[in-house]
Amino acid sequence: VSQSNLLLIFDLVGIFVFALSGALEALPKALDVFGLVVIAGASSLGGGIVRDVLLGATPPAAFNDYRYLLAPLIAALVVFFLHDHVRRLAPLLTTLDAAGLALFSVAGAEKALRFNLGPLAAVGIAVITGIGGGIIRDVLLREVPRVLRKEIYAVASLVGASIVVAGDRMNFNRTVTALIGALIIFGIRMIAVLRKWNAPTASTRPAS
Amino acid sequence: VSQSNLLLIFDLVGIFVFALSGALEALPKALDVFGLVVIAGASSLGGGIVRDVLLGATPPAAFNDYRYLLAPLIAALVVFFLHDHVRRLAPLLTTLDAAGLALFSVAGAEKALRFNLGPLAAVGIAVITGIGGGIIRDVLLREVPRVLRKEIYAVASLVGASIVVAGDRMNFNRTVTALIGALIIFGIRMIAVLRKWNAPTASTRPAS
Amino acid sequence: VSQSNLLLIFDLVGIFVFALSGALEALPKALDVFGLVVIAGASSLGGGIVRDVLLGATPPAAFNDYRYLLAPLIAALVVFFLHDHVRRLAPLLTTLDAAGLALFSVAGAEKALRFNLGPLAAVGIAVITGIGGGIIRDVLLREVPRVLRKEIYAVASLVGASIVVAGDRMNFNRTVTALIGALIIFGIRMIAVLRKWNAPTASTRPAS
Repeated sequence: VSQSNLLLIFDLVGIFVFALSGALEALPKALDVFGLVVIAGASSLGGGIVRDVLLGATPPAAFNDYRYLLAPLIAALVVFFLHDHVRRLAPLLTTLDAAGLALFSVAGAEKALRFNLGPLAAVGIAVITGIGGGIIRDVLLREVPRVLRKEIYAVASLVGASIVVAGDRMNFNRTVTALIGALIIFGIRMIAVLRKWNAPTASTRPAS
Repeated sequence: VSQSNLLLIFDLVGIFVFALSGALEALPKALDVFGLVVIAGASSLGGGIVRDVLLGATPPAAFNDYRYLLAPLIAALVVFFLHDHVRRLAPLLTTLDAAGLALFSVAGAEKALRFNLGPLAAVGIAVITGIGGGIIRDVLLREVPRVLRKEIYAVASLVGASIVVAGDRMNFNRTVTALIGALIIFGIRMIAVLRKWNAPTASTRPAS
Repeated sequence: VSQSNLLLIFDLVGIFVFALSGALEALPKALDVFGLVVIAGASSLGGGIVRDVLLGATPPAAFNDYRYLLAPLIAALVVFFLHDHVRRLAPLLTTLDAAGLALFSVAGAEKALRFNLGPLAAVGIAVITGIGGGIIRDVLLREVPRVLRKEIYAVASLVGASIVVAGDRMNFNRTVTALIGALIIFGIRMIAVLRKWNAPTASTRPAS
């Protein structure tokens, strides 16, 4: 798989799963169909748009390829028209969201490296790509952003992105490190959810 | 009217009415005069700034022409100093906001077409231009964004922007389609408000 | 001090104090260590990133110099591990935040002038640089943005930025006006806090 094809596939699959999870998360809010489209679009395109704006890659990919705009539209309509069936898939929501986080973080790291950013900056862009859409969704729905809740979320993105960036510095095969990075993000996030892992908070630490 | 004059007029009138409606909406929050200026500025310039950043047209028009910055300043001061008179105009708030939505959506579509975006992307930029400032205002005021409430709002923008983009593809006269598009957005939004039209929600639909 | 060194120093010190004040403000929310890093980063880098995106100076400085990313990381870890000691510094929070506002507003004005923006636009960019990070922090923490509370905040930034821009028009020494502008912002903000100065609100004014 060529590098730019890899980026496109990661982007499109990531957009679709983030759009599904965003629309599912918005279902209890009784939005109308257009509100659902707005939330699905913000959840799934927000991270990549912020990434492209920061990289100066304007107009963002989301506006250069109609498939990027179609994906959240279809996802929102699927959730709207099949909500009774889709609702039964609620346990899937966390899994879809973890997959989106993995795909977006890796795609963000890849694109930042292609724009010749330094390693720390590439990891930063990767994490912003992974968590940006979810933050915008949570702000619009007036939820506490998931990334601030006591869950392993940003850190999973951080670990996987660091692997992709380190692999690039060591000239490892790009496709292989991308897949390894994505699997590690997905794995850390899913284990954290299943085992209810939380990172330590300042108030729960013994005083130093 | 030349195309770029048309864009400027639509932008400036849109900024002024959005600034007035933003400041009026913020009045009950008892902000100070500077808070009112911030809200008027965010409501009225936010959509166009986001549009220009996405198009890579930086610095955004709002920072290239002092009239763009003066308009919300004047609107905020008018609302602040004449609030008792202005308050009586509250029924006008929805009308002003609908006018702003119409002007901004059409100006957004025009500018996106001038930057050679595809039709779907141009409609997307148009809707973001139309609803962006209001979303920023509502997030700052900690309200549920109007676009997510059960009202015909984003869809009015979507319909009018589609007309402008379709007219462009068919080489219709630009000024005429811009005016038609704006009138249709304004009309749909006003009828929706007057008749309390709502788009369907997933929970009110019969199960499929 | 050369102009670009001055900008770097103002930026880095501003980032560190804003990161400290952001992390301190987030402490009562019982975020985990990564949430604290996210808030420290958003508070301290947000204003400058928005400035650079608006100026078209992408990738933003924060992604071009690893020291910009290290500063909020260190600040967040300091607050996390030394929170019992740091908490005693709570009275410092307002002072740190006022210093950050001063440094960022001046750095924003300097950079906008270097990008040849007009005076009103340069002041606008300066204020956005100064208040942007705090707005993002408050939105993420679901607080009413400080800039909308009845406090002299944006206006302090406005006055100092206007001095820097006016000094530039009159060809005064850049370093001198930068320091004067920063001291005036810091001074206005601290006096406003100590004397509980508030700007007038529409509802407290006698009707006109």
